[in-house]
Amino acid sequence: MPGIIDAYRPYLPVTERTPALTLHEGGTPLIHAPRLSAHLGVELYLKYEGLNPTGSFKDRGMVMAVAKALEDGADTIICASTGNTSAAAAAYAARAGLRCVVLIPDGNIALGKLAQAIAYGAHVVAINGNFDAALNLVRDISAQHPIALVNSVNPHRLQGQKTAAFEIVDELGGAPDILAIPVGNAGNISAYWMGFQEYAAAGRSSTTPKMWGFQAEGAAPFIRGAIVDEPETIATAIRIGNPASAHLARAAVQESAGRFDMASDDEIMHAYNLIAREGVFCEPASATPVAGLLKLHAQGELPPGQTVVAVLTGNGLKDPNAALRSVEAPKGVEANMDRVLEAIL
Amino acid sequence: MPGIIDAYRPYLPVTERTPALTLHEGGTPLIHAPRLSAHLGVELYLKYEGLNPTGSFKDRGMVMAVAKALEDGADTIICASTGNTSAAAAAYAARAGLRCVVLIPDGNIALGKLAQAIAYGAHVVAINGNFDAALNLVRDISAQHPIALVNSVNPHRLQGQKTAAFEIVDELGGAPDILAIPVGNAGNISAYWMGFQEYAAAGRSSTTPKMWGFQAEGAAPFIRGAIVDEPETIATAIRIGNPASAHLARAAVQESAGRFDMASDDEIMHAYNLIAREGVFCEPASATPVAGLLKLHAQGELPPGQTVVAVLTGNGLKDPNAALRSVEAPKGVEANMDRVLEAIL
Repeated sequence: MPGIIDAYRPYLPVTERTPALTLHEGGTPLIHAPRLSAHLGVELYLKYEGLNPTGSFKDRGMVMAVAKALEDGADTIICASTGNTSAAAAAYAARAGLRCVVLIPDGNIALGKLAQAIAYGAHVVAINGNFDAALNLVRDISAQHPIALVNSVNPHRLQGQKTAAFEIVDELGGAPDILAIPVGNAGNISAYWMGFQEYAAAGRSSTTPKMWGFQAEGAAPFIRGAIVDEPETIATAIRIGNPASAHLARAAVQESAGRFDMASDDEIMHAYNLIAREGVFCEPASATPVAGLLKLHAQGELPPGQTVVAVLTGNGLKDPNAALRSVEAPKGVEANMDRVLEAIL
Repeated sequence: MPGIIDAYRPYLPVTERTPALTLHEGGTPLIHAPRLSAHLGVELYLKYEGLNPTGSFKDRGMVMAVAKALEDGADTIICASTGNTSAAAAAYAARAGLRCVVLIPDGNIALGKLAQAIAYGAHVVAINGNFDAALNLVRDISAQHPIALVNSVNPHRLQGQKTAAFEIVDELGGAPDILAIPVGNAGNISAYWMGFQEYAAAGRSSTTPKMWGFQAEGAAPFIRGAIVDEPETIATAIRIGNPASAHLARAAVQESAGRFDMASDDEIMHAYNLIAREGVFCEPASATPVAGLLKLHAQGELPPGQTVVAVLTGNGLKDPNAALRSVEAPKGVEANMDRVLEAIL
């Protein structure tokens, strides 16, 4: 895989001056899930975005955002993030030789979530304020200084993210019937819909999928019909109460005759385990669309025989403690073959 | 990437009855490192094995071992491991519908290292004994029961691992001058050498590389010339004092006119940071060959102009705390543009 800029240049806002930046993002596997397919009565494929260079789909958008920042002569990029965005920003900034500044809210931020960004050399600044304050600050700073903002308000991010839809069509030989995807900030569902539409317009597919967006119950503004002031869910990557791309996401669902729905944390962790039993380890947020499909199937609302792609947005190694949530430490067994066989058979 | 069994079938011990098991392992990126290349005076490429499905090179060998276990009619696989091997075994067992048993030494085992194996559904048993006792037990159990042993004594493991050498030759259009690789249990250096030799014999390359194996100073039996009773290093994936494949590794180095050397933990972490500044996040053990190259370059023992491939065996997300080892929590800054600009500029 040459990276998304080289692979999909005619479909991207690149010029002759856009550097061919890459860490070999994209080209992620589309993995058939035989057990879940049998259970759901559909053909379910998992688009495993956790195998991108920094472990999440954010790399697709960030390579575009950083390449355009380079093209525009920036020497610094900035974002407000405590998670996957900061890792992707820091990695591509390092690759491009740019400085990367990450603003985080002060207070109880687990430094572990920032280990990747720190390793890649990001300059992390904790501000005395919450996430919204951090986001306002990076907007102000980038408006008044030659520092490129790479949060999701940067339009190049969605341009890069849409390439995952191209890959799905290229690999299946056409669009799936349904695209099931986690919805947090709502940029990714919008990017996929843009990708499916553009590929259809270019004659690369004859159909577009229904876009099914799934939120966590504790962070479900699309289903609640209102902003959620204090979102809470184990699916931290989609713990967002006021999605930045809400209008685009609503349009994607309406135009595709799709739907929004939500799943509880318990349903998400149940799906997380079933996905792992297919041999695929994702972060909790990634399990949300599968949890949603299981719920809709149980309600008789998943038409049989459809081809469904669920987007697994991030690698399970981003949040290994989730796997241990309900696990007890194994009890010691005597180092003796009979005792061990008793324990395992 | 179709997975290594499909991609390299003529070179692997597969029959018509071997199932085409895969989680899309292999096909990992070979990433040119421009800054390290300039510093070292060579063309350095990083073979980023951390983008395998479970985050390490172990997947290449495990897919072969589990496919052969399936072919032989096993319903259970077993290994002694506290790290990457257990994750790979559990993932492929889940994919294949086999039970996976992981024996670990009792005592102060961080459950976090086993989060992946547990997520994939492995049955973890802690025995009252050390790692050697666990290894002896899994050997005895597999010898007397229809339970397939997938520790590195399983010869199919090296067969699968050699495919990484094929990929390097395919991508470079020939073998590199030097292959630099971490050495712990010494299986991987042996597998790469087997791969380079077989590809040369098949006419796919006209040369083979010098094999340069690097150990951590606290776990360097090849350099010390003796077993290390209590190996200790931050590079936990190669913290091994008595390598299982010692004879094969010595042969690889001798036959290729290569060498063994070692690096200190400080040198390893320095290399780890330099690799991250190229945009690539690996686990500490993976940085050992780059640390070794930096050391040999400083000693005038790295010939200029060579093409060198360093194998990064595992993903940095396997051990995120390593990135935080010498990092202080960021100090809070007032949420005010001027104060933030002071902090970042």
